[in-house]
Amino acid sequence: MPDRNRRVLLVRRPAGIPQPEDFGLDAVAVPEPGPGEILVRNLYLSVDPAQRGWASAEANYSQPVPLGGPMRALAVGIVVRSNSPEVAEGGFLYGWFGWQDYAVVPVSAIFRRCTEAVPLSAHAGLLGLNGLTAHLGLTELGRPRPGETVLVSTAAGAVGSLVGQIARNLGCRPLGLTGDDAKVARCREAYGYAAAWNYRSGDWAEALREEAPDGVNVYFDNVGGPILDTALRRMAVAGRIVQCGTASVASWTEVPTGPRVEREILTRRLIWSGFVVLDHKARFEEAVAQLSGWYAEGRILLDEDVSEGIEAAPGAIAGLYRGENRGKRLIYVG
Amino acid sequence: MPDRNRRVLLVRRPAGIPQPEDFGLDAVAVPEPGPGEILVRNLYLSVDPAQRGWASAEANYSQPVPLGGPMRALAVGIVVRSNSPEVAEGGFLYGWFGWQDYAVVPVSAIFRRCTEAVPLSAHAGLLGLNGLTAHLGLTELGRPRPGETVLVSTAAGAVGSLVGQIARNLGCRPLGLTGDDAKVARCREAYGYAAAWNYRSGDWAEALREEAPDGVNVYFDNVGGPILDTALRRMAVAGRIVQCGTASVASWTEVPTGPRVEREILTRRLIWSGFVVLDHKARFEEAVAQLSGWYAEGRILLDEDVSEGIEAAPGAIAGLYRGENRGKRLIYVG
Repeated sequence: MPDRNRRVLLVRRPAGIPQPEDFGLDAVAVPEPGPGEILVRNLYLSVDPAQRGWASAEANYSQPVPLGGPMRALAVGIVVRSNSPEVAEGGFLYGWFGWQDYAVVPVSAIFRRCTEAVPLSAHAGLLGLNGLTAHLGLTELGRPRPGETVLVSTAAGAVGSLVGQIARNLGCRPLGLTGDDAKVARCREAYGYAAAWNYRSGDWAEALREEAPDGVNVYFDNVGGPILDTALRRMAVAGRIVQCGTASVASWTEVPTGPRVEREILTRRLIWSGFVVLDHKARFEEAVAQLSGWYAEGRILLDEDVSEGIEAAPGAIAGLYRGENRGKRLIYVG
Repeated sequence: MPDRNRRVLLVRRPAGIPQPEDFGLDAVAVPEPGPGEILVRNLYLSVDPAQRGWASAEANYSQPVPLGGPMRALAVGIVVRSNSPEVAEGGFLYGWFGWQDYAVVPVSAIFRRCTEAVPLSAHAGLLGLNGLTAHLGLTELGRPRPGETVLVSTAAGAVGSLVGQIARNLGCRPLGLTGDDAKVARCREAYGYAAAWNYRSGDWAEALREEAPDGVNVYFDNVGGPILDTALRRMAVAGRIVQCGTASVASWTEVPTGPRVEREILTRRLIWSGFVVLDHKARFEEAVAQLSGWYAEGRILLDEDVSEGIEAAPGAIAGLYRGENRGKRLIYVG
C-alpha cells in the first residue's frame, strides 16, 4: 500500500464549465479513519456533468464543493480499513469518495454496495447515479406508455444512452439528439434508437416532425437552450418534459433569455418537471433490480469510456461538455 | 317573445386582445330548431378571458370562431322550444349559446343544467367554467396540502377570486397579486387572502419574499410574462405552477422572449403544468358539489359584475384585460 494519497483539489470557483485550471493535484499522507469511519481505496473515479453544479457557488440542490478541498465525485473503491461494524474490509463500494486515491468517510457516504450482478465499473454507471437518473427520470416523471415517442438529448451520453435503451425496453419509440455523426450511428446501432440526429448539422427539427408527426410524448432533456426551445414546440398534447440537465447553457450567472414558453405549456397541456435523482431514493433498489435484470438478459449495453490515471481528472468535465466521451466516462486509478 | 335575434358577430380576426372594432351587431329572425335541437333564450352572457384564444386563428386548444358568425360564449338561458326528448321546455341551462339573444343548438351544446343550489347567474361563474377552472386547476394540478402557500395572479378576477377562497377553504395560505389597490383590499377583505399586492406599484417581489420566506408551494398563474418570471424564482422546492392563462402577454404572433427557466425547473424540481378545464370533465360534478356546499355554508362569496344589454359585449373582453371588472363579468340580456 503506497503511503501517499493523490488528490484533485478544486482551487478556483469555475466560471461556468469547470476547466483544468480550476483544479490542482497534490499528494498527502494516506489519512487514518476515525471511530465509525472507513478508509476506501478508489478504483474507478466517476466523471459527471452534475459536477459542474457541485463546483458552482450558485444556489443549487447541493452545497458547493469547498475551495481547496478534493473535488466531489462518486467512485468505486475497496474498503481497506473499517472502524464500522456495518462495513467489512475487502468489500467493494460505490459512494461519495471524491477525486482522490483514498477517502476516509463515514458510512453515510456509501451510495450502494457493489454486487456481482455487473462488472465492478458498472456500479458507477449503469447501477449508479447515471442508470438511476435514466431509469427514474424516465419512469417517475416521464411516465411513458408503450408505443409512445420518447425524445432524448445527449442521446449517446452516460445517461442518455441508457434512457434510449430503457425506453425501448419499455416498448416506447426512442428518438435521439446528439452532437456528432459517429454518435448518431451509435444511437441507431447500439442504443436502440428508432432514429437519431446530429443537432449540429441539418434540419433535425424538420426530420423530427416527419418522424413524429403526432408529436413527442416524453422529452428527456439534458441540455436546455435552443434544442429545448425547438423540442418543446414539437410536444404532443399532454406531453411530459423531464428536465434533467442544462448542459448546453454555458453560464447562468447572467440569466440568458429565450422564447417564452407559457403559451406552449398551456395550449399543449404539458407537464414540465425538474429531476434530481436523490429525491427518488425510495425507488433506487427497484430500478437497480430492473437494470440488473435487463443486463443479465443482454437487453442493455455497458458502454464505458475509461481513462487511466488521476491526471486525466482535471480536464474530464470540460471534455464531457465538449462531447468527447463515448458512453460513461470513468478514470481508473487502481 | 320578440321576433328578432340580436347577435354579436366576430367580423375581424383580432390582433391580440379582441377590441370592440372586431365585432359587429346585427339582428336576424329568431331561428327555428331542427330535429333534436333546442331553442334557448339567453339571459346572462358570460365574458371570459379565454374568448381571446377562441377568436384567434393561432393554433390553440379549440377551433377558431368562424369570421362572420356569432362570437363563441357561454351563457345561461331558458329553453323556449325543444325538439329533444332529453330537454324540457322552461328549464334553465348553462351552455355554448354564444353572444346573442337566441341560440338554436344541439343537446351537446349544454354544459350543465341549472339547479336551485345557487342563483341563476352563478351557473355561469361559481358553478361554470370559472369555478371549475379554479377548483380543478388548483386541486388536480396544484395539489396543495393544508398549510401550504398558494400564490394567485389576477387574484380578484372571476377565476382568481375563487382560487383564493378555495385555497383558504382547503386550509392553505393564499397570497394574491392584482392590478389596483381597490382589488388588493377586496382580496384581503372578501376573498380570504392572507396578503395581497398591487403588482403595478411597489416591490411585491420583496414583500412576497418576506411573507413566504420558505417559498411558494403552488403558483396559480393566469398572466404569464414578467410576473411569472418573478414568481417562478420564489417557488419552494417541489413547487407546482399551474398555467391557466397568459393574460399579460399582449401577442404571441411574434413569440416574446424572457429569462430562461430550465435551470429553475431543475434545481427547484418544479412541476409546471398547463391547465385546460375541458380536459377534466370526469371531475366536474365532484367540484360542483363541493363549491355548492361551500356556498350553502357561506364559505364562498358570489361576486358578480353585471352589465345590461348586448351592446356591452363587444368591448367586454378588452375591458377584462384592462382589469375593469370586479368579480365575474356577465351581460344581462333577459
